[in-house]
Amino acid sequence: MSCKHIITVGRQFGSGGRELGKAVADALGIKYYDKELISLAAKESGYNPEIFENVDERATNSLLYSLSMGIYNIGNGYAPMSDMPVNDQLYLLQHKIIRELAASPCVIVGRCADYILRDNKNLLRLFIYANMEDRIKNAVKIHNVPENKAESVIKKTDKTRANYYSFYSNRKWGSIDNYDLCINTSTIPREAAIKMICSIVE
Amino acid sequence: MSCKHIITVGRQFGSGGRELGKAVADALGIKYYDKELISLAAKESGYNPEIFENVDERATNSLLYSLSMGIYNIGNGYAPMSDMPVNDQLYLLQHKIIRELAASPCVIVGRCADYILRDNKNLLRLFIYANMEDRIKNAVKIHNVPENKAESVIKKTDKTRANYYSFYSNRKWGSIDNYDLCINTSTIPREAAIKMICSIVE
Repeated sequence: MSCKHIITVGRQFGSGGRELGKAVADALGIKYYDKELISLAAKESGYNPEIFENVDERATNSLLYSLSMGIYNIGNGYAPMSDMPVNDQLYLLQHKIIRELAASPCVIVGRCADYILRDNKNLLRLFIYANMEDRIKNAVKIHNVPENKAESVIKKTDKTRANYYSFYSNRKWGSIDNYDLCINTSTIPREAAIKMICSIVE
Repeated sequence: MSCKHIITVGRQFGSGGRELGKAVADALGIKYYDKELISLAAKESGYNPEIFENVDERATNSLLYSLSMGIYNIGNGYAPMSDMPVNDQLYLLQHKIIRELAASPCVIVGRCADYILRDNKNLLRLFIYANMEDRIKNAVKIHNVPENKAESVIKKTDKTRANYYSFYSNRKWGSIDNYDLCINTSTIPREAAIKMICSIVE
């Protein structure tokens, strides 16, 4: 395995980036982390994972909004950073966990991992995207989004991800400068993409 | 060879995109077109190639500027579209030639080829980029730009290319949506990039 054995995956909603990341991890026989990071973070914090799931990959809400939504200081038991909104607590815990995980070869999807690991010399930073037509199809098929709402859900989800990324990294989500390789899954066949990524890592 | 045998290369100045395009063409044993397109266009038009070189990949200047620069209607001999600024004449001729060339497998660097061939089903649209530090090194080494002027030359050249691209295509140069694969040559080794591209085409 080459030095580039920590693979981060930024992805547009419905682009199949998560599935591609999983397939690459399987092909290389390395670990894959996505929502599992939330469970790990929740476990460390003593929080109920469901509370974290609601704020995952969302930038901090205003204090007022956080209070009104009841997502401020609602931890039961041990809450190590309890003066902070849950979003920021989750970010900091994920930050810590991502750095720990990056000690071994792995694929990490989303969660600003490319930014958090920016000083890691072993990084391969991917961004996965597709055209709207295909993303709508995937949103319906993979994420069970109703077809008439798919485009709106896609745009809202991407906006939330972009805000999260730029809030914590001060960089622009989906802008080529932040990545080593950007792959359009509408035009690059899935198997070719897996092969390409593996060829860099192996 | 797969269906994707027409390869277009958009590239930041100093990213090594042209050299990568040439290496891919050599590896695949297919034709490579870059500035040669100018010679072909000039040949068709009856113009001196040098006149075209000055306006290559530059968007149309205003009429006044064109007149003041002496780049308006200065063709000798046959000038088929002589009411147009030379920039537009060159674009139209390159447009025609690019469509003709795309009948056979080839690599075409710059000149809005990805946009001109947008309806071609055999297209692989690449965008090649790199960080500023490496681009400065390449500008000095490959393009003989003085080191103290390199960053300014890079920024100006990219601005000119971006304007040209957006003027004729109404799209944003360097934005992922317009490409199938975007490769950062600062972090993806050259040989790995060539191998990746060939793996899609072969």
